Amino acid sequence: MAFQGFCDENRPVAYPVPTYSLYPVLADIQNCTAIEIPFDDEFNLPAKLAATNAALTIVCNPNAPTGSFISVDELASLADEIDGVLLIDEAYVDFAENNCTTLVKDFDNVVILRSLSKGYSLAGLRFGYAIAQPEMIASLMKVKDSYNVDAVAIAVATAAIEDQKYFKENVEKVKSERARLTEQLTELGFNVPGSCSNFVLAQCLPPRLSSRDEAAGKNGRAAEIYKELEKRNIFVRYFNDPKLEDKLRITVGTPEQDDKLLLALKEIIK
Amino acid sequence: MAFQGFCDENRPVAYPVPTYSLYPVLADIQNCTAIEIPFDDEFNLPAKLAATNAALTIVCNPNAPTGSFISVDELASLADEIDGVLLIDEAYVDFAENNCTTLVKDFDNVVILRSLSKGYSLAGLRFGYAIAQPEMIASLMKVKDSYNVDAVAIAVATAAIEDQKYFKENVEKVKSERARLTEQLTELGFNVPGSCSNFVLAQCLPPRLSSRDEAAGKNGRAAEIYKELEKRNIFVRYFNDPKLEDKLRITVGTPEQDDKLLLALKEIIK
Repeated sequence: MAFQGFCDENRPVAYPVPTYSLYPVLADIQNCTAIEIPFDDEFNLPAKLAATNAALTIVCNPNAPTGSFISVDELASLADEIDGVLLIDEAYVDFAENNCTTLVKDFDNVVILRSLSKGYSLAGLRFGYAIAQPEMIASLMKVKDSYNVDAVAIAVATAAIEDQKYFKENVEKVKSERARLTEQLTELGFNVPGSCSNFVLAQCLPPRLSSRDEAAGKNGRAAEIYKELEKRNIFVRYFNDPKLEDKLRITVGTPEQDDKLLLALKEIIK
Repeated sequence: MAFQGFCDENRPVAYPVPTYSLYPVLADIQNCTAIEIPFDDEFNLPAKLAATNAALTIVCNPNAPTGSFISVDELASLADEIDGVLLIDEAYVDFAENNCTTLVKDFDNVVILRSLSKGYSLAGLRFGYAIAQPEMIASLMKVKDSYNVDAVAIAVATAAIEDQKYFKENVEKVKSERARLTEQLTELGFNVPGSCSNFVLAQCLPPRLSSRDEAAGKNGRAAEIYKELEKRNIFVRYFNDPKLEDKLRITVGTPEQDDKLLLALKEIIK
């Protein structure tokens, strides 16, 4: 992902936070100001996002690392309201029940980004694509490197996209295991909102935690569980950021992997 | 290739011309001023290149599209003289008799770029690499995308680099055919300086050309031969640029392909 195509030296980039941590890094490389608008506690689209006068407004949908999903109607309104490009990063969309491709027909300022690293399990492949109206694509082509995507990657991606049966089976496996993981974590006392991605964001609630953890304060619990899991060679994500500091992002694994995680969590929080 | 790692908002990029046409395009994308210093007629390193105060000085060596080679000693002097980075683009170096890797040991401001698209015949693969001292690499890593090179490309490139026998045989094939093509073109009346690349730069000399071609003037001949070849589905490169307008860049093909070219040239210039 490169922001050269969207950036305007005099106008910022804007996105709701918390979100994918690469956006500010890429904006910074391009000397572009980034305006970060905080989500509310339910990760709803912040109304202020439409009022930033950004050249590029980014919404990661489903959002990382929250797994939350902004409705297509809300994003249609946002696209309509802003005077700039709305980039909808759909890297995780294969695990959601809906997507925003229909918006491209109605709005010439919408760009949708897709990756083959998630739903298609091709995380090692550097292959992604954008969906937008021809004029938008033409303006992106102006700053595109003159060399095309790797020929082997094109062949691999084409084969993967053609095999929709395998793809759908795989996605269904992740979604069904996500439901089980969500249920089991809830039973252990975590607050786990429904996720539209291949990970869940589990809030570490106080009641089941030991008094020692209680003493560490609200924000210390998730960090402590994270460290305990790490000691057991189980790696989840912990972000010491507003709205995330009391939560763990847990990628949906195989049933066997998730059982190991659940067993370890039982030990840690008992 | 991205110039973000080298660019300094207040200092230009400099390179001798004619050279690879992507340098000015990439500099422009980064809003970087490009200083172009003309080669002399023998494509020797211009002395003025050391006096540009560029943050980044680029020498394509062997140079495209001339096939000429600047000696390692001359580039050592240049590296020593300039207060900035010397980027030596060795995309075509596998077809030359020497290379500049030794300079990396002596100069912390030298970066060598390599590609697998030429000598390793992997033109569809997006795989290249840089050679420089650890501190230089560390500063490039700061602006590198957090994702690595395509995993399939790494596997393919590794296999290709490991098979040095096949690689060397292939390069020798190109070099021996390059010698034959150079000789045959010279016999036809072209002026063809020795090339250190997988193409030759053939100057279209007047004597063998028809009076109709003579009338077209010096600069028209190469362009006219180019168009005549194109009619016969033979594609060479013609650049309507200073020092190139009377020349054709001809990639070394298989002996069969080159025979077709030579036969067509005989017809055109008879």
